[in-house]
Amino acid sequence: MMFTRDLIEDLARGAAFLGTGGGGDPYIGSMLLKQAMRDVESIKIIGVDEVPPDALVVPSAMMGAPTVLIEKLPNGAEALQSLIEIEEAFGQKAFAVMPAEIGGLNALLPLVLAAKTGLPVVDADGMGRAFPELQMTTFHVHGQPASPISITDEHGNCVVIWSKNDLMGEKLARATVVAMGATCQMCCFAMLGKHLAECGVRGTLTAAIAIGRAIRLAREAHEDPFEALLTALRATDYYKSSYVLFDGKVADLKRETTGGFARGEVRIEAIAPFTGTMEVSFQNEHLVAKQDGVVRAIVPDLIAILDRETAEPITTEGLRYGQRVKVMGASAAPVMRSQAALDVFGPQMFGLPEPFTPVEKLQANFA
Amino acid sequence: MMFTRDLIEDLARGAAFLGTGGGGDPYIGSMLLKQAMRDVESIKIIGVDEVPPDALVVPSAMMGAPTVLIEKLPNGAEALQSLIEIEEAFGQKAFAVMPAEIGGLNALLPLVLAAKTGLPVVDADGMGRAFPELQMTTFHVHGQPASPISITDEHGNCVVIWSKNDLMGEKLARATVVAMGATCQMCCFAMLGKHLAECGVRGTLTAAIAIGRAIRLAREAHEDPFEALLTALRATDYYKSSYVLFDGKVADLKRETTGGFARGEVRIEAIAPFTGTMEVSFQNEHLVAKQDGVVRAIVPDLIAILDRETAEPITTEGLRYGQRVKVMGASAAPVMRSQAALDVFGPQMFGLPEPFTPVEKLQANFA
Repeated sequence: MMFTRDLIEDLARGAAFLGTGGGGDPYIGSMLLKQAMRDVESIKIIGVDEVPPDALVVPSAMMGAPTVLIEKLPNGAEALQSLIEIEEAFGQKAFAVMPAEIGGLNALLPLVLAAKTGLPVVDADGMGRAFPELQMTTFHVHGQPASPISITDEHGNCVVIWSKNDLMGEKLARATVVAMGATCQMCCFAMLGKHLAECGVRGTLTAAIAIGRAIRLAREAHEDPFEALLTALRATDYYKSSYVLFDGKVADLKRETTGGFARGEVRIEAIAPFTGTMEVSFQNEHLVAKQDGVVRAIVPDLIAILDRETAEPITTEGLRYGQRVKVMGASAAPVMRSQAALDVFGPQMFGLPEPFTPVEKLQANFA
Repeated sequence: MMFTRDLIEDLARGAAFLGTGGGGDPYIGSMLLKQAMRDVESIKIIGVDEVPPDALVVPSAMMGAPTVLIEKLPNGAEALQSLIEIEEAFGQKAFAVMPAEIGGLNALLPLVLAAKTGLPVVDADGMGRAFPELQMTTFHVHGQPASPISITDEHGNCVVIWSKNDLMGEKLARATVVAMGATCQMCCFAMLGKHLAECGVRGTLTAAIAIGRAIRLAREAHEDPFEALLTALRATDYYKSSYVLFDGKVADLKRETTGGFARGEVRIEAIAPFTGTMEVSFQNEHLVAKQDGVVRAIVPDLIAILDRETAEPITTEGLRYGQRVKVMGASAAPVMRSQAALDVFGPQMFGLPEPFTPVEKLQANFA
């Protein structure tokens, strides 16, 4: 498909939903993409099957704390520099770019880079959502290395990391991000088409657009945007088991930026006919939603907090006391729920004591 | 000249003196160099004038906290990897390696690398002593960039930093060092012969050997090693103004490893005919020596603490309560005392309130 300017808002909104509270402010992403597409009619979106086996695909993303990104915008040049470093490291030109994570800002930035370079964007990512740490991808789960990792900032500083494993890559990249002021642009997990075919989460870019479009069309038709959103999610390959878990008002909010992450938790008090209290904790992204102490959804399944009237997804940095919100849960892609995957980004990897239980099973228990 | 195995101990001891308490334990350096020279007859030491104008010279060093290095030895492979990264970045083979700092371990490591590669070592460095931060070199003072900086660890992890300025290079390198476990191998300030001719501190490798040899010969002849040391220092180009400032016993010692540095201060109580108390503060290297509150020597002039019987230089990590020591002061190279140089590594750059005053002037005031 061809991605045109009129799809920017839909992608931004869908990506914000899939960002599960993290991945960076999609408003900033859409501003950057609008600017990048000022003189560009369209960007080519290609399927994983359209990538030749030995062609190089380069995921591009920002890394750091979304709370800082609001005040420290990328200028666009650093993403290009990051891509060029990867091309030099591989001794091969990029055939296409792609999102590392489809959640939030990081869904839009590869399109900004595509608009600058004329490269197509692959309709896939490494998680079908957003995650706070570098190794938390299906690429890593399948043994595809993050290294070489190129990291650039808006001043032209550049760091190229060759790590022996992805956890050390995350550690070195995180140290670099903090030294650069808590946000930067990066490329990592660059790989050949034949490897992407094995480990990419497919179709997530077009899924994000479909999710965003469903909300917009419902609003334009003065229909219930949550009904439309649920219908759209159930039409996707992955997010079929989707539910409105809770409806309420933000009553308490703890949030701090430490070690390059935005961490905290939000407490929401029910609006009838819902009852009780829901607490959602986050490390950049939402990790677990509990209603009166009972787990309703848990990572890697998706937890989104949305404006209860407009279904506008709210990022953790956009949470405010008194907001009226709905909390939604959605199933992650099956590849994200394997034991090997849970060993990388399951609840235990975030220090949570609760085991992973699919949201559809939790929903069946609760109803 | 040809550097042979029998010079290792002399170089290690002289480098420990010039390390002014820092630069890493020279014992470790001499062990590594002995091992590297097991099958190598000699290493060629060349003067700055012997480097062709367009030949690449690569300074090699360890970076981090000497207190950690004692427990985390380099394996030798990482220094070579670091050199290769620089060669690739320049697209040019190294003509020679050299010390970035002649103080402590970092005087010996370039010879370890030379033994492995067969490259000569240039008889020069960037300070004629040791300093805790990357930009604190005459190279930086003359506008020679530290970037590209290659950093490697014993596990094969490698980071290449392209920084827009040397302070950002230090910041990114330091973050990397901490992530790697507080010590690593690095190459930085790689430059062509014609640039080295403008900004290198010449003759410091052979000066270190001469200083170490003077102490050894005096011991072997049962003569006063401090007399021999003063004679040797006064015969060098830079360290002409050298004095025994104090003689006493270590009475108090504060030392901590924070942010990748060994920081602290040592208090020494006089042994007659000396009187009063001397306090020496350090950040990896000794910064200022005060006798009863009066400055006797201050950075960038050299402050060394030595065993009062053998004149063995003591590193900050080797300081112990109850040690009997002499404190010496020595003039830094003239190029290290310019206003431009003091703006980079003068007392204010270490947060000291006292202005720089040459040790010979302080000595004249005191006497």
